[in-house]
Amino acid sequence: MKKQNVRTLSLILCIFSYLLVGAAVFVALESDTESARKRMLEHKRAELRRKYRFTDGDYQELERVLRQAEPHRAGTQWRFAGSFYFAITVITTIGYGHAAPGTDAGKLFCMLYAGLGIPLTLVMFQSLGERMNTGVRFLLSRMKRALGLQRTEISTQNMVLVGVLSCLGTLCVGAAAFSHFESWTFFHAYYYCFITLTTIGFGDFVALQKKEDLQENQPYVLFSFIYILLGLTVIGAFLNLVLQPRTPGSHLRMQKHLCRLQRELRVLQDSCGHCVLLPAQHTICWTQLHHTQEISVNIV
Amino acid sequence: MKKQNVRTLSLILCIFSYLLVGAAVFVALESDTESARKRMLEHKRAELRRKYRFTDGDYQELERVLRQAEPHRAGTQWRFAGSFYFAITVITTIGYGHAAPGTDAGKLFCMLYAGLGIPLTLVMFQSLGERMNTGVRFLLSRMKRALGLQRTEISTQNMVLVGVLSCLGTLCVGAAAFSHFESWTFFHAYYYCFITLTTIGFGDFVALQKKEDLQENQPYVLFSFIYILLGLTVIGAFLNLVLQPRTPGSHLRMQKHLCRLQRELRVLQDSCGHCVLLPAQHTICWTQLHHTQEISVNIV
Repeated sequence: MKKQNVRTLSLILCIFSYLLVGAAVFVALESDTESARKRMLEHKRAELRRKYRFTDGDYQELERVLRQAEPHRAGTQWRFAGSFYFAITVITTIGYGHAAPGTDAGKLFCMLYAGLGIPLTLVMFQSLGERMNTGVRFLLSRMKRALGLQRTEISTQNMVLVGVLSCLGTLCVGAAAFSHFESWTFFHAYYYCFITLTTIGFGDFVALQKKEDLQENQPYVLFSFIYILLGLTVIGAFLNLVLQPRTPGSHLRMQKHLCRLQRELRVLQDSCGHCVLLPAQHTICWTQLHHTQEISVNIV
Repeated sequence: MKKQNVRTLSLILCIFSYLLVGAAVFVALESDTESARKRMLEHKRAELRRKYRFTDGDYQELERVLRQAEPHRAGTQWRFAGSFYFAITVITTIGYGHAAPGTDAGKLFCMLYAGLGIPLTLVMFQSLGERMNTGVRFLLSRMKRALGLQRTEISTQNMVLVGVLSCLGTLCVGAAAFSHFESWTFFHAYYYCFITLTTIGFGDFVALQKKEDLQENQPYVLFSFIYILLGLTVIGAFLNLVLQPRTPGSHLRMQKHLCRLQRELRVLQDSCGHCVLLPAQHTICWTQLHHTQEISVNIV
């Protein structure tokens, strides 16, 4: 079997095992709490039904009303700030689901909007991440030079370390801010930031859903939007860094090919600007080439 | 300003305008329906409160109970099938939020699980997408040959066309299947598939949440899991195809560099297996090199 097929198959097996392990751990961690909560809720529900003697129809109506009313708890979603927030969750694929289009026209537009927006956003974050990594590389090499270090080139290890620290820093800053604004614990706010910036977006914790924050607390709204977009850039830059060199295929093969060529060749330029490439083991006098524009190389 | 910085800045401006336009359209499409629904719900709620004369405390309790009970409507989430489903929504970043870890231990494990699982899944889908594109290329060129066409090489346009058709096909198959299993309209099932396979995952429509489907309808559970994973592969392969050649940076630059080198050089190999690279404009007799292992080149 071809090497790449073996690799793909191993990855598939790996993911399946990972899903099995994950499922087992989630069952172990969550099922007891779920059963206990379910029993408790059924008990309370039965108590309230006994107390008020709802008719079955009324109780179902009440359930339906309260369930549908939940999104409105956060105040109106579909004014400008809320719609902008929603548009961010669509093109970044976070998709909390705290608001979702209720009309069919809204659903249709949402699909068209995502169809163009998601690739555009991917390209933007890729481009921004690349610029960010270039900037970090430049700053690091400046710092190394300023510290008087002999080797100023930046290794992948250096970059990964900076990447990990930036991601952790971004998550901690977010956790501190959102735990302040939303009155969540630091752990819950950290969890919110993590679930948001990985674009999982469960929607169990959603910022800007308290009281009328979306409409009234403009500085917080602005902070949240900027935080989400900047945070996604930092995580994207890190993923770019970690995933690219390890992906197989044309990029890696080409990189290796170029490295080999560069090791084997010395590039010289004659006075007419033509490149002359010679195997590195053969020496040649640059000035000779430059002045006479005629050289003789013996390849033995 | 550097060309790449200009490109990144234009992309950022482009995304912001796109978000502004999106927000405006969503407001126009959704806000009336939202207000009407809100008024209707408030009216019904007031009616029920009048009829049963809840105390404020009891009403809040009822709200809380009904809100928390909602996830349990779909039967138990945290048995094996449900946890496996949840694990899929985590590592693929779909994150419907129909189930979310309720315990702090579950939240912590979920973060660790996603931290390793998401990059792994990205690598798998990338690898699988690459294999898929290679397979499609091979099949297409076979078909062209079988049809007796003169030009059998596969252009990017060919591949993009096949990609678009595959994506639409995948969505339509899913829409047909889920509208059958979940009794949704075809449009709503298509919307569900689209929101799932783009990994937005609002959670307004979630498969396998009807009755006890997760526990009892095993063929449907299996179909859903396979559909989601296969669908993500098809979309991933298409994104790979559309985004890669257009992304700037190292890949494209390297490709250009290699092309230029290949145009400028002829690669010869001497009898010892060493590569000898020479500018293409200078002719040299291969047999001469091969036999004498000594050549003389005049570069003028």
